[in-house]
Amino acid sequence: MQEVFLTRRERFSGAHKLYVSHWSKEQNEEMFGKCANANFHGHNYELFVTVAGQPDPVTGFVINATDLKSIIHEYVIDHLDHANLNLDIDWFQNDLQPTTENLIIAIWDRLEAHLKGCRLHKLRLVETENISVEYFGPTHS
Amino acid sequence: MQEVFLTRRERFSGAHKLYVSHWSKEQNEEMFGKCANANFHGHNYELFVTVAGQPDPVTGFVINATDLKSIIHEYVIDHLDHANLNLDIDWFQNDLQPTTENLIIAIWDRLEAHLKGCRLHKLRLVETENISVEYFGPTHS
Amino acid sequence: MQEVFLTRRERFSGAHKLYVSHWSKEQNEEMFGKCANANFHGHNYELFVTVAGQPDPVTGFVINATDLKSIIHEYVIDHLDHANLNLDIDWFQNDLQPTTENLIIAIWDRLEAHLKGCRLHKLRLVETENISVEYFGPTHS
Amino acid sequence: MQEVFLTRRERFSGAHKLYVSHWSKEQNEEMFGKCANANFHGHNYELFVTVAGQPDPVTGFVINATDLKSIIHEYVIDHLDHANLNLDIDWFQNDLQPTTENLIIAIWDRLEAHLKGCRLHKLRLVETENISVEYFGPTHS
Amino acid sequence: MQEVFLTRRERFSGAHKLYVSHWSKEQNEEMFGKCANANFHGHNYELFVTVAGQPDPVTGFVINATDLKSIIHEYVIDHLDHANLNLDIDWFQNDLQPTTENLIIAIWDRLEAHLKGCRLHKLRLVETENISVEYFGPTHS
Amino acid sequence: MQEVFLTRRERFSGAHKLYVSHWSKEQNEEMFGKCANANFHGHNYELFVTVAGQPDPVTGFVINATDLKSIIHEYVIDHLDHANLNLDIDWFQNDLQPTTENLIIAIWDRLEAHLKGCRLHKLRLVETENISVEYFGPTHS
Repeated sequence: MQEVFLTRRERFSGAHKLYVSHWSKEQNEEMFGKCANANFHGHNYELFVTVAGQPDPVTGFVINATDLKSIIHEYVIDHLDHANLNLDIDWFQNDLQPTTENLIIAIWDRLEAHLKGCRLHKLRLVETENISVEYFGPTHS
Repeated sequence: MQEVFLTRRERFSGAHKLYVSHWSKEQNEEMFGKCANANFHGHNYELFVTVAGQPDPVTGFVINATDLKSIIHEYVIDHLDHANLNLDIDWFQNDLQPTTENLIIAIWDRLEAHLKGCRLHKLRLVETENISVEYFGPTHS
Repeated sequence: MQEVFLTRRERFSGAHKLYVSHWSKEQNEEMFGKCANANFHGHNYELFVTVAGQPDPVTGFVINATDLKSIIHEYVIDHLDHANLNLDIDWFQNDLQPTTENLIIAIWDRLEAHLKGCRLHKLRLVETENISVEYFGPTHS
Repeated sequence: MQEVFLTRRERFSGAHKLYVSHWSKEQNEEMFGKCANANFHGHNYELFVTVAGQPDPVTGFVINATDLKSIIHEYVIDHLDHANLNLDIDWFQNDLQPTTENLIIAIWDRLEAHLKGCRLHKLRLVETENISVEYFGPTHS
Repeated sequence: MQEVFLTRRERFSGAHKLYVSHWSKEQNEEMFGKCANANFHGHNYELFVTVAGQPDPVTGFVINATDLKSIIHEYVIDHLDHANLNLDIDWFQNDLQPTTENLIIAIWDRLEAHLKGCRLHKLRLVETENISVEYFGPTHS
Repeated sequence: MQEVFLTRRERFSGAHKLYVSHWSKEQNEEMFGKCANANFHGHNYELFVTVAGQPDPVTGFVINATDLKSIIHEYVIDHLDHANLNLDIDWFQNDLQPTTENLIIAIWDRLEAHLKGCRLHKLRLVETENISVEYFGPTHS
């Protein structure tokens, strides 16, 4: 069996802030620093979506990368690009913070069901050149 | 005469929107697309500051890069990093839009007077991997 | 006067070979090395288009970057992307070689007339991480 | 036991096309888009070869990176650089398509036997800034 | 269980040489090439530290990236930045060579104990654009 | 006239320190910070050599990039790669400091005379991702 991992990169620019509503301004600034700015800041995010599968014997594709792009755009990029992660989407309800960690989990949950013929293996989300996260989906013990 | 151009890169993450107040929502969206989103979006900006001068015969420096960093931070980065360009600073009054073009001019105007012993030659501001601007200061005809 | 230089990056993947038809195979291989391979090789090219102008007092744009993208695609990318530079376009007739140098001149000649409200200032074309060219248009003595 | 993973990057520029011979032109263009162009297109490929092993107690090397470079060049780069993947090598016979997926498997099969004193752990092959594949070798169930 | 992997990048510039003291100059040059230069050479190293954990339900953090930065600086960067790896630190005693392989093991050993609330999962150390290593810690058989 | 600017990138890894011999240790540390470390530190330098000329009507080359590589290696890289800039070369005599500024001037002086059929237009030398210099040669007033 020859399993190959194919990664496609997509990008989006978003605004967000990190602010726990039942904390004081001082508590938020101590935990989140400048990220607690009430008026938001933003990032150019890079999202790397890795799917796993065996190349099709005729096409040589694990998945057609153009199809993969369409799926990522429909379920992720169209919602997040040029959006305010706190205000424009309902992914972060009940004081769930739009940290890079929570964002990558939310993306996984919206993307996974829509991949046909291959499985979602890994997401990588780059917030700045110095900070990124990876997620392989929920695990069960 | 041996003039050398020294460039230092600094970074900041900001939120902004492009929206002309006396235009309709439709006009703004036609001109600015998703950048007109009322709730803001954001970017990781990279700023490249280029100064020109002759290397000092003793130190070999056009300017001490540590001093250059301090000046850029005091007059630019400390104001723009994790800020909302529309709301948190007074650089964009009277409906002046915080486009990359207007932002680089505003940075030049705040930075130029503070460089001693060398002259500000060029700014380069990168908004995304696909869009950047350069500015060499105002010219007189 | 405040002239700002705006750069937009676009990409295309092309195949080409360098081969002077009235030279022997040996002469071609001596001059062009592996680039003379009769069956072609290829590159991911990056094209940086720099236009100059004053930001519009209302929009803050030198040119709307979305419009600039459309122009670059219509006159350049749509012709070069996934194309064979020797066979699929008529830009390199009469044994004119599709070197990076000749390609950047050919792009300038096809792009310049279509920029309205700003002027084409510079093209930069990256063939590999080690080789790139820049061109500022024809000069007259 | 202290296993370290050492990665060496090498590069090659190649031309290829994706085209199933028993399909119509329309079928090929629907599946492969512009990649089906009969005259080929090309890419700057980046190949990352990762080997695993314990550092030698005297030299501190998992493998001498200069030796690793030589092996990669002899068995991979010398065959693929400035080559046409469809025409110049016999790796893609019987309508096997030179997709990134099939290419990384073919590289693994030619490289693995030649690594002495360490084992081939992973290959990563980057076709464009947006598309890459990884492969850990064949698995047995 | 939702385990997320967070990576923070830090950088340091160091000098080193590779030279086995009980070998002749010729033996060292044959094994290490130019890296055996008695007067040292140097690199800009990039260190990627990956920690694993579940995001905190209130803050959304696996670890506060600012805290992670402080820990990396205190135990690694402050010791290695602008240092001579052979002379300025005692990490490479008894002719242990400061190769990238041995360096990443040494960093792991100094960093691991100081991460609270999450676990050190992986280190990646980039010596040049062509050579890097990864390490997941010692394993027991 | 169609002048094209061709740039070739080469790399070298070197060690250096900045230390004025007739200053005290304290004065050196105040001016140069950690760069004054007596035992040296080092960098991966990137050198971008830009030459200007008209493409040859037959070959389409301003200069054969392979020839340009050979010239840069013979006069620059072979001297600087894996070298100690203070000890291994005689470019920095009489307390001339091996700063990036002085290094780029020294490279220009050694390279310029050896370019035939085109002229050296610009050098760019990158010391870290945050600091680089450019030089266009000596000017006369």
